[in-house]
Amino acid sequence: MTRLQRLKNCFSGLGIDGMLITGMANIRYLSGFASDEQGVASLLVADRPYLITDYRFDEQAREQRTDDGVEIVVRARAEESLGQTLQRLAKGAAIKRLGFEREHIRYSHWQALAADLALDTECFKPLSDVVEKLRRRKDAMELQHIRTAAQVADAALEQIANKLSPGVTERGVAVELEYALMQRGSEGVAFPTIFASGPRSSHPHGMPTDRVIERGDMVTIDFGAVIQGYRSDMTRTFVLGKASTQQREVYSLVQEAQQLGVDRVTAGVACSEPAKYVAEFLNNSPYARFAGDGLGHAIGLETHEKPYFAKEDDTVIEPGYVMTVEPGIYIPGWGGVRIEDDILVKDEGIDLLTNFPRKLIEID
Amino acid sequence: MTRLQRLKNCFSGLGIDGMLITGMANIRYLSGFASDEQGVASLLVADRPYLITDYRFDEQAREQRTDDGVEIVVRARAEESLGQTLQRLAKGAAIKRLGFEREHIRYSHWQALAADLALDTECFKPLSDVVEKLRRRKDAMELQHIRTAAQVADAALEQIANKLSPGVTERGVAVELEYALMQRGSEGVAFPTIFASGPRSSHPHGMPTDRVIERGDMVTIDFGAVIQGYRSDMTRTFVLGKASTQQREVYSLVQEAQQLGVDRVTAGVACSEPAKYVAEFLNNSPYARFAGDGLGHAIGLETHEKPYFAKEDDTVIEPGYVMTVEPGIYIPGWGGVRIEDDILVKDEGIDLLTNFPRKLIEID
Repeated sequence: MTRLQRLKNCFSGLGIDGMLITGMANIRYLSGFASDEQGVASLLVADRPYLITDYRFDEQAREQRTDDGVEIVVRARAEESLGQTLQRLAKGAAIKRLGFEREHIRYSHWQALAADLALDTECFKPLSDVVEKLRRRKDAMELQHIRTAAQVADAALEQIANKLSPGVTERGVAVELEYALMQRGSEGVAFPTIFASGPRSSHPHGMPTDRVIERGDMVTIDFGAVIQGYRSDMTRTFVLGKASTQQREVYSLVQEAQQLGVDRVTAGVACSEPAKYVAEFLNNSPYARFAGDGLGHAIGLETHEKPYFAKEDDTVIEPGYVMTVEPGIYIPGWGGVRIEDDILVKDEGIDLLTNFPRKLIEID
Repeated sequence: MTRLQRLKNCFSGLGIDGMLITGMANIRYLSGFASDEQGVASLLVADRPYLITDYRFDEQAREQRTDDGVEIVVRARAEESLGQTLQRLAKGAAIKRLGFEREHIRYSHWQALAADLALDTECFKPLSDVVEKLRRRKDAMELQHIRTAAQVADAALEQIANKLSPGVTERGVAVELEYALMQRGSEGVAFPTIFASGPRSSHPHGMPTDRVIERGDMVTIDFGAVIQGYRSDMTRTFVLGKASTQQREVYSLVQEAQQLGVDRVTAGVACSEPAKYVAEFLNNSPYARFAGDGLGHAIGLETHEKPYFAKEDDTVIEPGYVMTVEPGIYIPGWGGVRIEDDILVKDEGIDLLTNFPRKLIEID
């Protein structure tokens, strides 16, 4: 069954007879049209699906379309608002109750559409996670892209790890890492590379700066590749020179936490379970108050997808889910350690997709 | 006067006594906190401004804060919703009428906040372009960053132009260009590099593919650097080998249109003027139906800022505005030409910030 058909099958349960898709990853998933720029296209799914864009993306839409049934509508932006175009198409398709993606539409955009659409307010229905739920179980082609993205990340990190040495800057090495990713086929980077050294490594999301790396520093690198839109996401923490006793202690703790987390992930288990288990493990350590909350997230066309490995997320893990496991200890003024891998949940067990060594690496 | 003070001075005219800032570029402009990730921080501006974030960005917020008056509020995400935090702060600050940024808040986010805030609906006011208007005239420091970004782009393009030759792929050269940008200090890329060769150059926004560049191809490259968050945006079109008569003709037409556009930009003129002038010029050419609409846009912390050089934009151009001028001709199946520069509007005249040669370059 096509992805569009799977979506249409949800309509009666949702009480709608058409749906407006504005999330770019959802548009890509359903139609093939690929852009990271919010707003350059919308997908109206009714009996007949319409991809609405403008002249700048007309040829691209025709080339990328994965389903010949999708009609491309090129809107003259100066002459017709998106709401007017939608109203015209919705009328033609006899749509009475139109769903929209409440997480993927700006308030201003929603206001303008609601004003242009000749629908009662209650017939323009805010919906959550409709396409996202279809996207959770990755198919064989999607898994192939994520596997490749993970392999590209492994190889790029291996290539640049030996460039880590006292005297280089965070930014200098981060640039080499991103170049290595792209040379291996990554379409840009999955997200801005996190690269934090020394005391800065306690910033869970520290961007690379011109700080010069010194002997004794811990260096945390969190980065990902993109293949056909599918992302990988991996973190490793290195020590420059011989690790101190406390560096070893914190590293071992995080490594054990990560392994415990990975070991708890299996089809049929609620996402909250590994999260609670690892949180309890870290809370019983001397570093309890420095443990980050949240253990991981699903990944695919977006870096952060639902479900989350979080205490409050009771989603049951299914085969075909790809998720990160990434505990961390962050000690302000001292530094931090995070270890993160991507795992594929299978019918039986899991596959680790990122495989750069997890053991403490002391770089001379 | 500080940026925050300039914002507060707008409050009485807007009928508010506090404002919630959720646009990341606006947060950066006002507070110094820099992230491209929507939602990781919010800024509540009342008598006392509050930057609300979570443990992941606590240290970063303290380091980047440009105004000591900004209080950092670290929210425990699992314990308090953003709306609850806001309600607590708004109550303490005696905010009765709170404005929000209608263009920078998702419908779902707005819904959740509106539910948590103990404000009447009409006291949670949607506003447009409030901080954006403050950002239009760039100050000396901002101009320095944009100038640097433009110089970095000029130099990077010069470095990779000689790598354009029959047999290389679009993606291969695009990767080298992005690497050259970052080696020169660019913080990533201003936007995903547009790189389209041969017939694909008719895609105004074509992403690089594995297409092999051939003799006779036109190649359009549209890219930008980022320095301290400030962007440049430049397009050049090359011909591989000797240009055909038609390639010369289209190139000359676009080059003349671009020069006419640049020449019409001056303080005191409405944005619509250069747009209409260039549109009329192209509409009187044999390629009228292949001309792209829109002549350019302002640029700064974001690649696309208002105002636009568009027929319907009557904003009067002021000194300190930085804008692009980028006419194009796009002929499906044949190819396209676009030439784009960044210009700074001064009290008298303009400065061209991007200076890579505009003349037709035939690459042997």
